[in-house]
Amino acid sequence: MKRTGILIVVSGFSGAGKGTLMKRLLERYDNYALSISMTTRLPRPGEEHGKHYFFVDRDEFEKHIEDDGFIEYADYCGNYYGTPRAYVEKCLEEGRDVILEIEIQGAIKIKNKFPDAVLVFVTPPDAGELKRRLMGRGTETEDVIRKRLSRAVEEAQGIENYDYIVVNDELEKCVEDIHAIVIASHCKVQKSIVRIEKISEELSGISKGEKE
Amino acid sequence: MKRTGILIVVSGFSGAGKGTLMKRLLERYDNYALSISMTTRLPRPGEEHGKHYFFVDRDEFEKHIEDDGFIEYADYCGNYYGTPRAYVEKCLEEGRDVILEIEIQGAIKIKNKFPDAVLVFVTPPDAGELKRRLMGRGTETEDVIRKRLSRAVEEAQGIENYDYIVVNDELEKCVEDIHAIVIASHCKVQKSIVRIEKISEELSGISKGEKE
Repeated sequence: MKRTGILIVVSGFSGAGKGTLMKRLLERYDNYALSISMTTRLPRPGEEHGKHYFFVDRDEFEKHIEDDGFIEYADYCGNYYGTPRAYVEKCLEEGRDVILEIEIQGAIKIKNKFPDAVLVFVTPPDAGELKRRLMGRGTETEDVIRKRLSRAVEEAQGIENYDYIVVNDELEKCVEDIHAIVIASHCKVQKSIVRIEKISEELSGISKGEKE
Repeated sequence: MKRTGILIVVSGFSGAGKGTLMKRLLERYDNYALSISMTTRLPRPGEEHGKHYFFVDRDEFEKHIEDDGFIEYADYCGNYYGTPRAYVEKCLEEGRDVILEIEIQGAIKIKNKFPDAVLVFVTPPDAGELKRRLMGRGTETEDVIRKRLSRAVEEAQGIENYDYIVVNDELEKCVEDIHAIVIASHCKVQKSIVRIEKISEELSGISKGEKE
């Protein structure tokens, strides 16, 4: 039976360590493809075009919108962020599990368009840890941090739309939790109910004494 | 945060290899407790009282029913089968994940009483394999086998009430699938939404400039 890929949307508080998690998930298991978002925000030090994001200007982004080139896009803190359609659809057809790391506005749009998508929310164990991580990055002003904290509160208000919450306390454990969620998603009844119906039909034939 | 156990109901076609699966699951992971059913059917060769089943007569079984001693019981092929309440409730409170291997009538009763219970249906890859396994046991008459085949068809008719289907093609892979389903179930949003609400409240305080 052909295995089709699952769309996994990973969101969570800014500073919850999603980037490191995704990197480790891709290192440990080979069934994943990471969707790279397109954005109009400027690269942070060390970020590469085509690896962390596709960095484009507003004109180019808006041209993609017109061409229906995104499965979702959103305006977040004054910048566009979008998920290019072609790569995601190609990977799913090939049976790869596609991970999107996007914020809540996008996640809910994805769930509406792809009801089988699995929404995972990553959280640090408590608020103190979260604040420490945000401060620790050292690349943002206090005002930006304060803005992010407010935003985090807003993000979590949509938590009831998510399917799973993983606590990023211990990296490897958290990676295994996400992988388990994906394996479980492949076992959902809807994915193989056809197989059971087929077996039932055959058994029905045998028990009525038909020739095998 | 205290971890409460999950109730996992494993059902499936007779001869799908559930017994071997459960045995291997308990060998590999230490978070599980296996609920032992009570039955009025006679032991098969090799079956032990208190290990495979609690074998009792109809009078004793009916006394347990009167005492509300079962979380579910059913009459199946002329014999009673029931799940003793005390052991299951004790293990769940202790945070252990409790596995019940029961047939479909019981599974659906469990889901009604315990909406958080996870229903897993085990199937062999195809009908031929299933029939070979049923014949292979060599302890049943052809009439019993035929009865079971008919029953299997009936069982699968309730498949839409299940949460997951696992294909028992390769034993170790199947054991890992079930374990992944249990890990994922522990990550369900409902299980830790309180944590997120608490973090949001704290962040909300920080972003408004309250003293930490």
